[in-house]
Amino acid sequence: MTNFGFRADRPGEFQLIAELFAPLAAAPGAFDLTDDAAVLASRPGHDLVVTTDAVVAGVHFLATDPPELIAQKALRVNLSDLAAKGSTPAGYLLALCLPPQLDMDWLRAFAKGLADDQGEFGISLYGGDTTATSGPLTIAITAFGHVRTGMMLRRQGARPGDLVFVSGTVGDAAGGLACLRGEAPSLKKSERDFLVSRFQRPEPRVAFGKSLLGTASAALDVSDGLFADLGHIAGVSTVRIVLDAAKIPQSQALITLWPNPPDRIARAATAGDDYEIAFTVSQRRRAKALQAAAASGTPVSEIGHCEAGKGVVLLDSCGEEIRIPLPGYVHF
Amino acid sequence: MTNFGFRADRPGEFQLIAELFAPLAAAPGAFDLTDDAAVLASRPGHDLVVTTDAVVAGVHFLATDPPELIAQKALRVNLSDLAAKGSTPAGYLLALCLPPQLDMDWLRAFAKGLADDQGEFGISLYGGDTTATSGPLTIAITAFGHVRTGMMLRRQGARPGDLVFVSGTVGDAAGGLACLRGEAPSLKKSERDFLVSRFQRPEPRVAFGKSLLGTASAALDVSDGLFADLGHIAGVSTVRIVLDAAKIPQSQALITLWPNPPDRIARAATAGDDYEIAFTVSQRRRAKALQAAAASGTPVSEIGHCEAGKGVVLLDSCGEEIRIPLPGYVHF
Repeated sequence: MTNFGFRADRPGEFQLIAELFAPLAAAPGAFDLTDDAAVLASRPGHDLVVTTDAVVAGVHFLATDPPELIAQKALRVNLSDLAAKGSTPAGYLLALCLPPQLDMDWLRAFAKGLADDQGEFGISLYGGDTTATSGPLTIAITAFGHVRTGMMLRRQGARPGDLVFVSGTVGDAAGGLACLRGEAPSLKKSERDFLVSRFQRPEPRVAFGKSLLGTASAALDVSDGLFADLGHIAGVSTVRIVLDAAKIPQSQALITLWPNPPDRIARAATAGDDYEIAFTVSQRRRAKALQAAAASGTPVSEIGHCEAGKGVVLLDSCGEEIRIPLPGYVHF
Repeated sequence: MTNFGFRADRPGEFQLIAELFAPLAAAPGAFDLTDDAAVLASRPGHDLVVTTDAVVAGVHFLATDPPELIAQKALRVNLSDLAAKGSTPAGYLLALCLPPQLDMDWLRAFAKGLADDQGEFGISLYGGDTTATSGPLTIAITAFGHVRTGMMLRRQGARPGDLVFVSGTVGDAAGGLACLRGEAPSLKKSERDFLVSRFQRPEPRVAFGKSLLGTASAALDVSDGLFADLGHIAGVSTVRIVLDAAKIPQSQALITLWPNPPDRIARAATAGDDYEIAFTVSQRRRAKALQAAAASGTPVSEIGHCEAGKGVVLLDSCGEEIRIPLPGYVHF
């Protein structure tokens, strides 16, 4: 198949779509999207970091979300993976499965969203494919970035005694989705806007992720929920992670939305789509991690520690384990 | 997000799916699919060639096709792009959007199809993502391979005087789809099986594509239809391509299926999904190209030439232009 290949049943329209994307292919190796494939020149002394994530209308975003924001969410969930690995984003490939009802105005806004983010993150589109679908809008992006050879931050590497941190606040995206579903009628507009924005337009922690290279012992992005994601670090690092519930960082807007602390903390720790970075760091490198956070203007919270054992536990102020009622997301 | 991240609404099942794919991630940089991203070590003296194609049930394959073959078609349409660029496939990323009705037996067969092809092509799964969809099964694959620095075969490069070749035969996949739709009840089983196999399980011309490096002046895979694809070479190379209708290679099975020559030739030249390699070569390198074809056991046909001008024309035995009734596929 070919870059942006289209069936002849909508030739004029598909040609226009392709023309929308060609200006996004600024990198020389993208050949203005006129070839079957793109070329990534190797960068001496660096590994290429690759990741792919698909987002589907009705699962990861609402079909009624603004097209610019749908584009940016599809891209940013991938950039967040690159950020958590300490890599510098370079570009992406876009596979777009379009239902018939999306018109050119929608697509123009979608391409504009990508163009704006390409400017913000200094990346280029390298290629793609567009096809019709009888189902919901589906966007599969593969993003790639560079990291110094052998330095990629891994989920593996946390050790007993290491401290556990998370950037920003967690649970906001879940709060934003609740707002979009009409579950927060009494929230102030500014609080509602903040939460909705956290759901619709994640902010990948690119600069901060890079600054953790050589400092963090393990890291990942919080996409499936803090509790579940730290479970992955615990699993592959073979440690037990003990979290202090009182230290889980929550925004003021979320506190207003969900005033009941135990319920809010459980939701915040298990909801997905935060796109913060959770990481572990040895006590010796704690100060260095805090300096890195300050240098990139990233708020971080120390939320727990690692010890021998397995799994993740959440303790209340009396040291009693809080049973998490929701499993959050699970994955391999 | 994460490799093979799943919502908690189907945790047990999704865990099993992930376990099916982990054994496919043989490359060290795939980290057994336990990290957010994979690492591709750079290969000195080589560029990385990347391509992405999504296939959708009801558009690119039939939902009732055997799962092994659906997996292989999704992978092979990408490997065909790598082959046509002269690159050596190395690995792929898989984004899978699953409708709820696909059960574990189906998924096991799907993974088996991938495993078999990984063996055949010497490649590894590097990562992926699985999500639910309310729509048709959708599979987006990003494949990557290596080619010596600056050597990738391009669509650009054909010159007036160059000869035009295509490997194998064209139109068979369209014939196979016609068979699957019950449009060829009187065909012999062996002919039917051949055509259906050409639709369901393309054979990327990997060895042959590599042998064209430094010999072909332009190349691409025939996915949108011979006529449309040569139009892309003509467009970016700024040449006119003149084809001799009598030389368009067609299989005996296709001749039996569609006995009327003008109709068959028009269909064969415009139908998609052939995954052969069309290429141009200077007269001086004609013998070298034929040697390369013979060395890899690849049948090739000389079907026309390039001249100054633009577009693609198909001439009959009297030198009259044959008007193509179907536009085939169009794309950017």
